[in-house]
Amino acid sequence: MPDLTTEQLRPDGSLRHLLTLEGLSRAQLERLLERAQGFVRPLGVRPAMSQTLNGTTVANLFTEPSTRTRVSFELAAKRLGAAVVNLEMQLSSRVKGESMLDTVYTLQSMQVDAFVIRDAEAGVPQLVAAHVAPHVSVLSAGEAHLSHPTQGLLDALTIRQSKPRFGELTVAIVGDIRHSRVARSDWHALRTLGVTQLRLVAPPALMPDAGEFAGGARHTRLEDGLKNADVIVMLRIQKERMGEADLPDGKQYFGAWGLTRERLALARPDAIVMHPQPMNRGIEIASEVADGPQSVIRDQVRNGVAVRMAVLEEVLGGRR
Amino acid sequence: MPDLTTEQLRPDGSLRHLLTLEGLSRAQLERLLERAQGFVRPLGVRPAMSQTLNGTTVANLFTEPSTRTRVSFELAAKRLGAAVVNLEMQLSSRVKGESMLDTVYTLQSMQVDAFVIRDAEAGVPQLVAAHVAPHVSVLSAGEAHLSHPTQGLLDALTIRQSKPRFGELTVAIVGDIRHSRVARSDWHALRTLGVTQLRLVAPPALMPDAGEFAGGARHTRLEDGLKNADVIVMLRIQKERMGEADLPDGKQYFGAWGLTRERLALARPDAIVMHPQPMNRGIEIASEVADGPQSVIRDQVRNGVAVRMAVLEEVLGGRR
Amino acid sequence: MPDLTTEQLRPDGSLRHLLTLEGLSRAQLERLLERAQGFVRPLGVRPAMSQTLNGTTVANLFTEPSTRTRVSFELAAKRLGAAVVNLEMQLSSRVKGESMLDTVYTLQSMQVDAFVIRDAEAGVPQLVAAHVAPHVSVLSAGEAHLSHPTQGLLDALTIRQSKPRFGELTVAIVGDIRHSRVARSDWHALRTLGVTQLRLVAPPALMPDAGEFAGGARHTRLEDGLKNADVIVMLRIQKERMGEADLPDGKQYFGAWGLTRERLALARPDAIVMHPQPMNRGIEIASEVADGPQSVIRDQVRNGVAVRMAVLEEVLGGRR
Repeated sequence: MPDLTTEQLRPDGSLRHLLTLEGLSRAQLERLLERAQGFVRPLGVRPAMSQTLNGTTVANLFTEPSTRTRVSFELAAKRLGAAVVNLEMQLSSRVKGESMLDTVYTLQSMQVDAFVIRDAEAGVPQLVAAHVAPHVSVLSAGEAHLSHPTQGLLDALTIRQSKPRFGELTVAIVGDIRHSRVARSDWHALRTLGVTQLRLVAPPALMPDAGEFAGGARHTRLEDGLKNADVIVMLRIQKERMGEADLPDGKQYFGAWGLTRERLALARPDAIVMHPQPMNRGIEIASEVADGPQSVIRDQVRNGVAVRMAVLEEVLGGRR
Repeated sequence: MPDLTTEQLRPDGSLRHLLTLEGLSRAQLERLLERAQGFVRPLGVRPAMSQTLNGTTVANLFTEPSTRTRVSFELAAKRLGAAVVNLEMQLSSRVKGESMLDTVYTLQSMQVDAFVIRDAEAGVPQLVAAHVAPHVSVLSAGEAHLSHPTQGLLDALTIRQSKPRFGELTVAIVGDIRHSRVARSDWHALRTLGVTQLRLVAPPALMPDAGEFAGGARHTRLEDGLKNADVIVMLRIQKERMGEADLPDGKQYFGAWGLTRERLALARPDAIVMHPQPMNRGIEIASEVADGPQSVIRDQVRNGVAVRMAVLEEVLGGRR
Repeated sequence: MPDLTTEQLRPDGSLRHLLTLEGLSRAQLERLLERAQGFVRPLGVRPAMSQTLNGTTVANLFTEPSTRTRVSFELAAKRLGAAVVNLEMQLSSRVKGESMLDTVYTLQSMQVDAFVIRDAEAGVPQLVAAHVAPHVSVLSAGEAHLSHPTQGLLDALTIRQSKPRFGELTVAIVGDIRHSRVARSDWHALRTLGVTQLRLVAPPALMPDAGEFAGGARHTRLEDGLKNADVIVMLRIQKERMGEADLPDGKQYFGAWGLTRERLALARPDAIVMHPQPMNRGIEIASEVADGPQSVIRDQVRNGVAVRMAVLEEVLGGRR
């Protein structure tokens, strides 16, 4: 595996690709968050728009369906004036790398400037980034269980909007951490931005291996993990996982691991509740919490467009 | 079921949602038709375009495929300067309401201003309209067998272009009225606009229940229903319905219920023929009639874009 | 079959449809290539853009999937300022003609100005062209095994960029010529542009009938066909065809018919290698050749957008 820390930066230190948040500096993350904050508008007013990327073309290459993330990138690009093409590719693993590369070469020759790539398996965004022309950028929109960097950024931005003093925060990441790209990107972002009190809260079967998330406090009872937390990041649990070894299913899971109003009361009174969506209401989170006054879940979505605008402008804006 | 008559209007009486034509006043319908007429252009000239909706975003949420209606809304929105995103959702009934709402909340947080919703079951547009933020609009693009309000408007506009004196018209709605959202929306529009001679012309199996379409003259022989009509609205018959109890299939249906040139001659000489499409040529309508001099079927399509522009401008245009 | 030579031209001799290159004059082809060349930009600079087609609408109607060609036409249209709608239609043969025509009439009534049509069977683009209104244009994006006119043009443009003296060139078309629309359109373009030394290089099972490609030198050994060639046009072989009568499969095919570096050395030292894509690497072409210094495969893709811009501007640009 190549050293991605270096690879996604240009020689002058600016961001060329966004494949992972791992290795980006605090200053780089803060710069992106600052830029993104400038694109945030209240609900119901005209969205931030510009023509900064007029003349550029962005291709969404999704090999697993994710309408929300695709639309978020699509609107981010369009609101900066870029042209957008969407490609949904169903590729078998056997031919994926080669077919993906030939498709990317083809689109690059059509003057596509940035590829937004989502894939359920590891390695494809890096593979593409390693092969595109020097002026072309690759943005991961979710890679296997490994990373989802724009989600990490938008989560950091959402926290920062109400709790900007990262060093003082206690953040609890709750649920299927083991299989979660969101958890990993949140972890990278929040660590770098100065959060020291990071808790991993999960049943043993969903806890990551000991070698990962080094320094995080591990809790296998939800109540312990929530106590006095400032930020609660709930993760989606795949229903297929429930009923597996050591994991209760359906209502039983909710009984032990669902975020209810009662449990939320264990956290600080001003704690915020986050979820990357889509939610399993009544399984990992109660609807009254998801829609309640402490929820910032819709802010996350709004911030997602802003973060993607910031990243697109950062990687493409310098060129024209 | 809430009172939709009130719900789709803003406190100042202006249109916020368009879920049904039922309950809209004659003045409101005429205002929409007038506005739509302003967007009509002859075939082959530059279409009406403006930047009125620049900065707004329209999402097409279709859970049953309907390329034509989707493209009509898409072009209407784009020609007013709006950004458009298309989402095709295949949702099981069990999760539809909840998933639809979470998707709508998500898109709303991405600054989507209007949702165009098509669904084969009843209630989804209303459900969404009841939950979106106050600045967001919902437009039904077809709801179960219940309503298809923009189709009702475009049919009214089409009639008005050649026969503006609604009070003097005899309109025959022919075919599968029982299962037709088009028939219901046409009924609402035409009744409100002053048509008094409305005929329901259908075999008994396709005739609506007695409680519906109150005041319409019912004819179970096509020839009776066509006699001296000014306007003939043919409906599509679902092929799956043919062969059912009391309903002849295929050629037999055409023999008894197909609109042929001979039968058309029973209507007034200047009668116009309409069809919401897609047509089953040779089943409910003969090709020579569909493509003949009395057909205004293509005008309906042209007017459809104009009506959708008018509705979009009406619900969104005041905001910016 | 009507006389397409006449049909795709307007009375003033200008191009109205592009259904085939057969019958277009050398002057017409050169004019299109010249116009296309004006849209070519080096990789990494801002693509050629204009508002020439602002106010026009282009519909992509694809009945067989072809993401690359669809995106190429889509970007070409958008970069000229046109609105684009994409329709993927899965139609059975039985209803295709009728359904396609009704869809086309519908879109035409929505002020669609040009239809880009791709279909696996013969005759659909002609059928549509014969029925649209006089101001509407039809562009074939690939018709059965018969023609793919924009591919023929982009191949001619690619050759012209490095080897403009067509009369002196030896061009070898290699592979599954029998089933190839690319080969037929290349043949028409290159013949008209003055190439006299055209070789058909294929195993007997993939060689076209004797009545086609009249005047082409036929070679059933790859080495013979490559000798001293200036231009090598490799064709894609459908994997389903391999293993059929008289045709080796997989590696055996590559052994006899794959373009390797060693075989390429039989051609002139400055010979160029082309392929319409998608490629079967390791079957009809070695990766080191596809990606090697003599390959102009990516130039073909770049030129494809330029050619489609030229054609769209040619057929639509005069109107507004």
